[in-house]
Amino acid sequence: MSKRKDQALTVAFIGGLGEVGKNMMVFGHGDDMLIVDAGLTFPRDEDLGVDVVLPDFSYLVEHRDKLRGLVITHGHEDHLGAVPYLLKEVEVPVYATGLALGLLEDKLQEQGVRLPAGSRRVSPGEKFTVACFAVETFRVNHSIADCVGLAIDSPTGLVVHTGDFKFDQTPVDGKVSDLHRLAEYAQRGVLVLLSDSTNADRPGFTPSEKQVGKALDEIFRTASGRVLVTTFASNVHRIQQVLWFARKAGRRVAVVGRSMERTVEVASRLGYLEVPEGVLVEVEEANRLRDTGVVLLTTGSQGEPLSALARMANGEYRRAEVRQGDTVVIAATPVPGNERLVARTIDQLFRRGAEVVYEAHRGVHVSGHASREELKLMINLVKPRFFVPIHGHYRHLVRHAELARELGIPDRNVAVAENGVVLEFTPDRVRDAGRVPAENVMVDGLGIGDVGSVVLRDRLQLAQEGVVVVFLVLDRTSQKVVAGPDIVSRGFVYVREAEGLMNEGRQKVEEALRRLGPQRLGDWPAVKAAVRDALGRFLHERTGRRPVLLPLILEVGEERGIVAQ
Amino acid sequence: MSKRKDQALTVAFIGGLGEVGKNMMVFGHGDDMLIVDAGLTFPRDEDLGVDVVLPDFSYLVEHRDKLRGLVITHGHEDHLGAVPYLLKEVEVPVYATGLALGLLEDKLQEQGVRLPAGSRRVSPGEKFTVACFAVETFRVNHSIADCVGLAIDSPTGLVVHTGDFKFDQTPVDGKVSDLHRLAEYAQRGVLVLLSDSTNADRPGFTPSEKQVGKALDEIFRTASGRVLVTTFASNVHRIQQVLWFARKAGRRVAVVGRSMERTVEVASRLGYLEVPEGVLVEVEEANRLRDTGVVLLTTGSQGEPLSALARMANGEYRRAEVRQGDTVVIAATPVPGNERLVARTIDQLFRRGAEVVYEAHRGVHVSGHASREELKLMINLVKPRFFVPIHGHYRHLVRHAELARELGIPDRNVAVAENGVVLEFTPDRVRDAGRVPAENVMVDGLGIGDVGSVVLRDRLQLAQEGVVVVFLVLDRTSQKVVAGPDIVSRGFVYVREAEGLMNEGRQKVEEALRRLGPQRLGDWPAVKAAVRDALGRFLHERTGRRPVLLPLILEVGEERGIVAQ
Repeated sequence: MSKRKDQALTVAFIGGLGEVGKNMMVFGHGDDMLIVDAGLTFPRDEDLGVDVVLPDFSYLVEHRDKLRGLVITHGHEDHLGAVPYLLKEVEVPVYATGLALGLLEDKLQEQGVRLPAGSRRVSPGEKFTVACFAVETFRVNHSIADCVGLAIDSPTGLVVHTGDFKFDQTPVDGKVSDLHRLAEYAQRGVLVLLSDSTNADRPGFTPSEKQVGKALDEIFRTASGRVLVTTFASNVHRIQQVLWFARKAGRRVAVVGRSMERTVEVASRLGYLEVPEGVLVEVEEANRLRDTGVVLLTTGSQGEPLSALARMANGEYRRAEVRQGDTVVIAATPVPGNERLVARTIDQLFRRGAEVVYEAHRGVHVSGHASREELKLMINLVKPRFFVPIHGHYRHLVRHAELARELGIPDRNVAVAENGVVLEFTPDRVRDAGRVPAENVMVDGLGIGDVGSVVLRDRLQLAQEGVVVVFLVLDRTSQKVVAGPDIVSRGFVYVREAEGLMNEGRQKVEEALRRLGPQRLGDWPAVKAAVRDALGRFLHERTGRRPVLLPLILEVGEERGIVAQ
Repeated sequence: MSKRKDQALTVAFIGGLGEVGKNMMVFGHGDDMLIVDAGLTFPRDEDLGVDVVLPDFSYLVEHRDKLRGLVITHGHEDHLGAVPYLLKEVEVPVYATGLALGLLEDKLQEQGVRLPAGSRRVSPGEKFTVACFAVETFRVNHSIADCVGLAIDSPTGLVVHTGDFKFDQTPVDGKVSDLHRLAEYAQRGVLVLLSDSTNADRPGFTPSEKQVGKALDEIFRTASGRVLVTTFASNVHRIQQVLWFARKAGRRVAVVGRSMERTVEVASRLGYLEVPEGVLVEVEEANRLRDTGVVLLTTGSQGEPLSALARMANGEYRRAEVRQGDTVVIAATPVPGNERLVARTIDQLFRRGAEVVYEAHRGVHVSGHASREELKLMINLVKPRFFVPIHGHYRHLVRHAELARELGIPDRNVAVAENGVVLEFTPDRVRDAGRVPAENVMVDGLGIGDVGSVVLRDRLQLAQEGVVVVFLVLDRTSQKVVAGPDIVSRGFVYVREAEGLMNEGRQKVEEALRRLGPQRLGDWPAVKAAVRDALGRFLHERTGRRPVLLPLILEVGEERGIVAQ
């Protein structure tokens, strides 16, 4: 044991597409590794055609013999969405609270992956041992039920990892963040606090989720027609409030959209959602009720074009449509990058004659993350020796680190890391202990990691300028062009109106081949370069564009049937 | 004259990419047409590769004999950026206030277009006649100097067009919006008010531009190093405040970035910017001054990757760089769609050790558009018979129309239009009088309008899935495949790691050709369909992707040299 005490604790930050440690962190001590979260993110604008982005598992694969457990802090995609992919690579028991485990099991079943032996449900407040780590979960509030932070007692010292959190003094389920445990950890002495930085640039306190309930109550009681509510499908507490206040207002609730239906099913089955008797109806039945007796609870809060709400707004959804007199409540803010999609949906809803409640000042959305005053409270409660801001973009980490310094944590004890960094802690110091692979691993269709920077760069050029293919056939024996050159394009110009341009382009290629001379036609690289140069220059002069140019040369000879490119 | 009075006034809403009448409106009476503004917008995410979007000029071209004048309300791109393009199509005299005209002349010179005869500068408050329209400009406040609204006295009645506006009670140049004229119009009787709806969903009043000055003053006085300020290059009043408060704090100002340099040059030459003696320095000189004596005023407030600020943040700008101890003030909010770019720049600035002031609550940015209380004030001042909300997305128009009804304008007198609509007014009623072409005209490189929905759809598929070209050569006489099939791809998979996939794909194509049988090889549509089907299905099965598939078939025969595709 004393040997162990000598060893340092390492923390590796892996996944998060710019948000540090958001999707995955790995704690290491001696021969034991404990993973916290395995989530995925959605691609950035420039990740063309990419479906989701996974953490880089190579550090875990390399140390597969040391992996002792994976603890999931809560049921959001960016904390558990990568588990099925991870479990295809390594075997590690999973620990999660009930709702997260329920959602995960659903997901694993869909992908045909089995939960490894030793996996189990843990309750908020429960203690369990994972090799040299004594882990205790503590309850925190967030925009999904059953969310925990972790107190990880390692041989080097006690680590507190907040997970995603806010301090909601009046949470919907009545279960306040476990302030007393946090205080108790401080008494035991906390080596390092890793704390959620998402809202580190927001002053004050984040309002309680109950504020949303008040706004919904008011709308449900006063709206003169149907009410449609859209929010993140995982926000169980908000869904709970929709059910409660709909019932209070004498409205019945129809759930629309697959992910929302799934949350309601899983959360009510596991006891995280109390569904008042008789409040839920099928959409078809709701369509037959009087308008003031109806709430539609739907997916689509991010303006996703294929969501139920967007399709209802466009009149393209079979089961229901938005109409004059409806009130639509957008109980969410757009995730950065989705602003225009959301705005477009709102415009479309107004066009159909609906009233739309979307302004933040109407109180229909609150954040699930702690603002600056709550972040200070967390630091003051936990009183850590070392402080590491996590779960935020670099600007948030900097702001959060500033807060910690303001509260008296010495500058040398505050570490701002980035994904790929390994921090090493001893009781006396923190240091940068090197790097681990933390590239973004792109999933496109069935391919994991086969879309990288080369493919994305090509896609960007294709997207902006299109593609022009020029092809011709050479006779090997005579060294003459026996067919072509011909040109085909996509995404470059409107083909029907560009015949002249293409004919001229063909002439330019022919001229270039003539200039090259028959004796050099066997020199393919030279032919390709000449074709590319001549056509590229001509098209740029005439259109100002630089499409992806693909010169294709085929060769036929006496024996025929041989081809190269 | 009495005949004229009988005629109706028409208003056509043309340009704006979803924002109604934002880039262009056309007033018509009898044989006279008056254009208000000719601006451009920047493309949406899905307008892949498009540089700018122009209004559809075809209504103007069709009625070129009726065009009497083009009045520009202010110097922003979305109100005058399309003038050079328009003047290449039609001849119409341009009326604009000094700063707008100065910026426009700069732009015209660059594009080699001459200002038509009869064009002239008009002062705020000036009256001038354009055929049957007696036009009077009235001063309004906005985020650029020298901004006006228009009172257009037509034979049908008096029209008030606010342009972009806010009511700033303490404007930087001391020139308050002309409340008295607005009151006077009301006394004369206003037929219709067309009013800026941009902020129709913001409660209260928009703060004064001077608030930004206060924040800058504080920062310039207290920052312990250099201060970098970025804002919209056209915001002359904000630039003015930077110069004033820099001087007050004993700092000299270096202007960085072409568009910012141009504004400072034009605005100071025309007297819209008062440059205190000796306050401006070259960047190279600023680099030699003590840090607390320097302000860098730079472009890049939207995170544009090629802007001076983004390049300084990345250490890629030759003349200056951001370093530890700098304070960077982002005096702007992201235009929707730019959020991630701006966030990335901020992260990068923090990484270089700069302090960044970007939060709205720090007071370093205010909107240039009126909020709800100001919109009410405008309606109450002008007291129009008819009300038409303009300059906003549909949701803003609906909100603004609600306001007008709340203030007592009868429902039948409030018209919410969209681009492409023509409204017709008589003294007694407003009606929908049909449609005019109002498609978005895309400019990509040198091409205007040659990128349409087909090209954009292809680009989107290319962007998301890449392109796969499969090509082969047929012998016309023997009806045999004499070369190929071969496959080339871009943006689909990483080629070096996908050789096996491509080989298998080739085999699938060969099998498909065999199944088709030699007698059908002359039937090109059948060959293409067979190749496309076989390869498309195989690639989708193996990768889950559906790339753009281009099957190319070349034919050679006895005579050789003939080709078709």
